[in-house]
Amino acid sequence: MNTLEHDLNALRATAPLVHNITNYVVMNYTANALLAVGASPVMAHAIEEVEEMAGIAGALVINIGTLSAPWVQAMKLAMKKAADLGKSIVLDPVGAGATGYRNTVLSELLETAAPTVIRGNASEILALAGLGGQTKGVDSTASSMSSLDAAHSLSERLGCVVSVSGAIDVIVQKNRVAYVENGHPLMTKVTGMGCSASAIAGAFCAVQPDSFQAAVSAAATMGVCGQLAFSKATAPGSFQIAFLDALAELAPEKLVELARIR
Amino acid sequence: MNTLEHDLNALRATAPLVHNITNYVVMNYTANALLAVGASPVMAHAIEEVEEMAGIAGALVINIGTLSAPWVQAMKLAMKKAADLGKSIVLDPVGAGATGYRNTVLSELLETAAPTVIRGNASEILALAGLGGQTKGVDSTASSMSSLDAAHSLSERLGCVVSVSGAIDVIVQKNRVAYVENGHPLMTKVTGMGCSASAIAGAFCAVQPDSFQAAVSAAATMGVCGQLAFSKATAPGSFQIAFLDALAELAPEKLVELARIR
Amino acid sequence: MNTLEHDLNALRATAPLVHNITNYVVMNYTANALLAVGASPVMAHAIEEVEEMAGIAGALVINIGTLSAPWVQAMKLAMKKAADLGKSIVLDPVGAGATGYRNTVLSELLETAAPTVIRGNASEILALAGLGGQTKGVDSTASSMSSLDAAHSLSERLGCVVSVSGAIDVIVQKNRVAYVENGHPLMTKVTGMGCSASAIAGAFCAVQPDSFQAAVSAAATMGVCGQLAFSKATAPGSFQIAFLDALAELAPEKLVELARIR
Repeated sequence: MNTLEHDLNALRATAPLVHNITNYVVMNYTANALLAVGASPVMAHAIEEVEEMAGIAGALVINIGTLSAPWVQAMKLAMKKAADLGKSIVLDPVGAGATGYRNTVLSELLETAAPTVIRGNASEILALAGLGGQTKGVDSTASSMSSLDAAHSLSERLGCVVSVSGAIDVIVQKNRVAYVENGHPLMTKVTGMGCSASAIAGAFCAVQPDSFQAAVSAAATMGVCGQLAFSKATAPGSFQIAFLDALAELAPEKLVELARIR
Repeated sequence: MNTLEHDLNALRATAPLVHNITNYVVMNYTANALLAVGASPVMAHAIEEVEEMAGIAGALVINIGTLSAPWVQAMKLAMKKAADLGKSIVLDPVGAGATGYRNTVLSELLETAAPTVIRGNASEILALAGLGGQTKGVDSTASSMSSLDAAHSLSERLGCVVSVSGAIDVIVQKNRVAYVENGHPLMTKVTGMGCSASAIAGAFCAVQPDSFQAAVSAAATMGVCGQLAFSKATAPGSFQIAFLDALAELAPEKLVELARIR
Repeated sequence: MNTLEHDLNALRATAPLVHNITNYVVMNYTANALLAVGASPVMAHAIEEVEEMAGIAGALVINIGTLSAPWVQAMKLAMKKAADLGKSIVLDPVGAGATGYRNTVLSELLETAAPTVIRGNASEILALAGLGGQTKGVDSTASSMSSLDAAHSLSERLGCVVSVSGAIDVIVQKNRVAYVENGHPLMTKVTGMGCSASAIAGAFCAVQPDSFQAAVSAAATMGVCGQLAFSKATAPGSFQIAFLDALAELAPEKLVELARIR
């Protein structure tokens, strides 16, 4: 069986619990995206319970979109616990490079535990790769291809998969590279699409031990559903809804048929 | 007039203010569900204002989905105030049994003030009924019928209505039991449906002094709207939207016609 | 070129970064509304980064919907910084008058820095104008026209634009008044519509230095999109989605054609 097909079937057969410590803006959409694709989301951030929650979850997703000190403390506790238990950790470095605080927090998180997958846009990956060196601002115009070297460097340094979302998604791990040429520009007009990509990467990591393959399956699922959604809705409000529908209705064979991976 | 019809008419005629201290994931959807059905939502959690807000609201809804210590403190203050003023309190024990922290907080909340209605899924009701005894994990496969004894036990112990959502909703108070056989499985694929059920139970409690009846009206309204939404939308994104439309468009006579209560 | 047309074109040409410190309920919808109309939203509230974020943003939007002490501290830091840098500040006094805490916080915020635009409903503007004098409760039945004197008084006292949303939007600055007669009653049945109006006012302030004109352009954009959305969807769930679509699809000439400003 094709790996994509295997991964999506496995995700739906097991409905893995994905523990999210994520930002306020996208919590609802991310939870709905996880439910729609077939996973089981839980959001919990209290320092009193994040370790226990990380322990019962199949994967941990850390997203720094709306940071504050108590949340950072919880993220560290959860990451440490997940790492100790050998669970996958997906890190979404939202707005890396935009403020010094985000850079500082990212450094601290990376010192706490190595993520399994880092998923961000090109600007974030470029900023993250430069941590410790020059400060960078937000550069939302960078293309995913332009961050290829940064992604490789990050992957080498941290020993993790780096998944860069863009017109072409680039997934890197050591000497492996995959390009996923799916998706639609309208995805950038809906908040939480990137965050959902990270959450869904977490769901695939819970069922696919090869985290590079899990990241590819996640990127392909997102991209194919973006295309399917655009065939139903061409403005961002209705697109956002059609995307959730597409995640739920996506047949594994359709994913295989439409995925453009090289 | 049929009680369901009376309750929905009363809700819309008075548009009761419902004070929610709820979780981040569902705040937007819950507020929209309350507006759609005809109530007036307010979300406020600052310890500096929760007592005053509880005082001007028609009902208080406490939902522990995304706990942290400052929120627990606010919940206690609000519950105490609402109880002192004789206002209805609906408690949604989200994830009861999933972590020790949730169990501890639930014990503390129940010691602070007796809820008028506890509304949860079967796993949560089973976990809550076992508090003080054995620890339980999350059991999302439990059916509402399997929690009948737990619901009765909780209702006896706390002197409150217990409403268990599931394929068949079970509402219990002392020697009273009602079964609501409405709803649709797709409701489990949208985050915040249970939380909305609790919020809407709060709205009905604000207009119907018999809290058992209020809980039945809420469960029937949710279930009937789930069915009406499914007649318009068969995937979770569009279903979520169609459900809000159904809440707004639901005619009281239609509620009476479609409700299957025994 | 008509000013409305100029403003909307300028907004889309520059996609200004709008920094929001807003409430949990509406964060997702507000972010999507900003993206749809053509701006670039960022939500950040950590005291460690709000000043830096305010510095890189084109405008700051402060919304007190779900207050707590740490957020108030962040709002003050961000407002002070934005004022020092000469950036526009939009203040949305959600629930002004509902609790003493909201009144206190609003007084403190107004002492920290003068907003460029205050946007609220009539009850909130009436309450805010009465600060320092009598305490007022929530008065959701007040019409925007009834708050004309309060709006003038606030505008005089604070030297800012006051924009009152209602069946007729009233925008006031010193001796200038504009009435925007667009919109639809269904807008009051979707949570976050007012908050989105404030956020979009921030986006227009970032591209139109005459803040009175910016507030008028924002009110007209909201109102016209409300009407366009209602032509597609007549219940609140689907209306909420159609509204985002309308924001994205709104042609500047259509805005000019449909805007009823006097």
